[in-house]
Amino acid sequence: MTTTIRTQVAIIGAGPAGLLLSHLLDAAGIDSIVIDQRSRDEIEHTIRAGILEQGTVDVLVSTGASTRVLSEAHQHDGIELRFDGGGHRFDFPALTGRSVWLYPQHEVLKDLIGARLAAGQDLRFNVTAQSVEGAETDRPHVIATDADGQTLDIEADLVVGADGSRSVARVAVCGSSRDGYFREYPFAWFGILCEAPPSNDVLIYSNSDNGFALISQRSDTVQRMYFQCDPDADPDALTEEQIWEELQSRVPGTTLKEGPIFQRDILRFRSFVAHEMRRGRVVLIGDAAHTVPPTGAKGMNLAVADVVLLEKAIRALLLEDDERPLDRYPEVASRRIWKAQHFSWWMTSMLHVAPDASEFDRRRQLGELRMVTESEAGRAYLAEAYTGWPFETQR
Amino acid sequence: MTTTIRTQVAIIGAGPAGLLLSHLLDAAGIDSIVIDQRSRDEIEHTIRAGILEQGTVDVLVSTGASTRVLSEAHQHDGIELRFDGGGHRFDFPALTGRSVWLYPQHEVLKDLIGARLAAGQDLRFNVTAQSVEGAETDRPHVIATDADGQTLDIEADLVVGADGSRSVARVAVCGSSRDGYFREYPFAWFGILCEAPPSNDVLIYSNSDNGFALISQRSDTVQRMYFQCDPDADPDALTEEQIWEELQSRVPGTTLKEGPIFQRDILRFRSFVAHEMRRGRVVLIGDAAHTVPPTGAKGMNLAVADVVLLEKAIRALLLEDDERPLDRYPEVASRRIWKAQHFSWWMTSMLHVAPDASEFDRRRQLGELRMVTESEAGRAYLAEAYTGWPFETQR
Repeated sequence: MTTTIRTQVAIIGAGPAGLLLSHLLDAAGIDSIVIDQRSRDEIEHTIRAGILEQGTVDVLVSTGASTRVLSEAHQHDGIELRFDGGGHRFDFPALTGRSVWLYPQHEVLKDLIGARLAAGQDLRFNVTAQSVEGAETDRPHVIATDADGQTLDIEADLVVGADGSRSVARVAVCGSSRDGYFREYPFAWFGILCEAPPSNDVLIYSNSDNGFALISQRSDTVQRMYFQCDPDADPDALTEEQIWEELQSRVPGTTLKEGPIFQRDILRFRSFVAHEMRRGRVVLIGDAAHTVPPTGAKGMNLAVADVVLLEKAIRALLLEDDERPLDRYPEVASRRIWKAQHFSWWMTSMLHVAPDASEFDRRRQLGELRMVTESEAGRAYLAEAYTGWPFETQR
Repeated sequence: MTTTIRTQVAIIGAGPAGLLLSHLLDAAGIDSIVIDQRSRDEIEHTIRAGILEQGTVDVLVSTGASTRVLSEAHQHDGIELRFDGGGHRFDFPALTGRSVWLYPQHEVLKDLIGARLAAGQDLRFNVTAQSVEGAETDRPHVIATDADGQTLDIEADLVVGADGSRSVARVAVCGSSRDGYFREYPFAWFGILCEAPPSNDVLIYSNSDNGFALISQRSDTVQRMYFQCDPDADPDALTEEQIWEELQSRVPGTTLKEGPIFQRDILRFRSFVAHEMRRGRVVLIGDAAHTVPPTGAKGMNLAVADVVLLEKAIRALLLEDDERPLDRYPEVASRRIWKAQHFSWWMTSMLHVAPDASEFDRRRQLGELRMVTESEAGRAYLAEAYTGWPFETQR
């Protein structure tokens, strides 16, 4: 049996992109539905990273999407770069007048889900999109299945694919879910979550002869740390003692505060941009359109930038019958996406030790780290990318 | 028959590094000999590139090595970067308070040779160094052969290898002339010299889908231009018309002023740093110690930075019997060398289209060019490297 639902904007994916878009559309008086194949519990309790750019915080706060970010997020006024035995603080407010905030993505999701449900919005968990049909028509559909196996046919003016890196909507836009510009990296991150106090007040990005490590924080009692590893590494092959040795050897000068490790995982690195971000009345945002390696902390922020741009285009389309902003959306969004792709690639290649790096490459890399850190302009160039470029406005 | 000569500093190579060092040592009352296997005519009349950093000009002028640089050099207050159909001026004085000067290397050499000979210094052309002996003793020797086949045995307190990328002195320092950190690039430059007026007031660095081009100047009537080509390209395979077509297609938006092409050559790209810059009483400077690809215009400037540093160390050694600055010379010089290696690699990889670049790489590159040019900090970061970091002083 098929249930037919009508809405103005059908959004696939209850991640930060899909939920924020729905929130903004609601404020503009535009009706939407958000579906996600996961349960609410899974979405809210999978611990995720989260460095929010100034612009992202501003959007969350000014639209009422999250007020907790003001009280719960930790303001980080910089990062520390380590290499060649020395530490170098990048003072973001001094360099750019901006900061970043540590506020894990699953907390953003709790806020957004709470706000959506409180407003009586149509938000459905355990509903799996199967396909998107009619992209070239004025009434595209999402065909989905709920937890009981029932089929939903969601008919809308516009379908938005916010369904992450394995996007179903991407098939309707690009013809294939793998159709895109792509890069893989010959290394991965071995990540841990542990119960311990923070080892540092800001994130430490450390380049060492043993490879990269990132010392980050989640809360006053839970910490997240990573070290560069082989993409095929087995997360269970190391003892806790060996993990601490690996981490500690990569941040000489700091004694890490150790504690019980309660999660370990391998994060593979890939860069991806879909060949197309729009076909007719189907549009992609966030990870459905692009994936970045995590080194530059750009993933969620780039999704929010897409949303800010697309929401204006949808308002023009549905409230003013003006399709031009939607026509320009892919090109305008691409400008930021490729800058963020470059920044993420740059941070990744500047800080990791590639397994096939020559001795020349390694010394050039240290020359680069010195060139950036010794120059105020270099530190500002990195800091303004890390804290986020201003959101583009359509011209 | 062997002629024995005694001096304080034996310098192999009458390029900018060797001649400037000899000039500075003379001012400090230290005796030196400079030998070179080439004739004076060949040295003075091989047309070479020459972008002088502010610091290089300051050294040439303040030491009396060249006064002509003040009247003959063209001050360049920036460069222009072209990509994706647009041109972007980097205004060096506004970004850094500094400029660069166009003054070809063979003009610097004429000035330095004139100054050396006028001062009655021992400067010998057509003398080929065969080997350097006794590096670990207090009296190292250069064994050389003059144009008549006679052997010269030059005994000194210190031997300086300023003999370029095929350095003989490097064998005495590193054990082999090829012993170093090395990188080759999968492209080269097709260079021309032509009789024509300048096509632009500053250098144009252009990234295009057809590959890189550099539109540079030599004088009011002679221009130097390059375009990216295969390292195995035959410089005689193209007609003049084809060469202009290649160049013109890579700088859309500018109509190049054409003229008769009187020289054409292929410049291969390599990055090299010798594993060691010193062994006992033998020291390497300039291209004998390091080679950079020409994209960052760093070759001669890096040689001058070596000279400024080494000259102080030689004064300490020979006038104050203090060997510590010479002990520190390799490490201090290396800091600048690896920054310059990085800068040269960066400019090269940001601007050329590598033959094996993926579509992802190409779009990331355009994202990088946009990220640098749209940011004042990015432009300043590039400009301060291009115009030259301050010369390091020994601490």
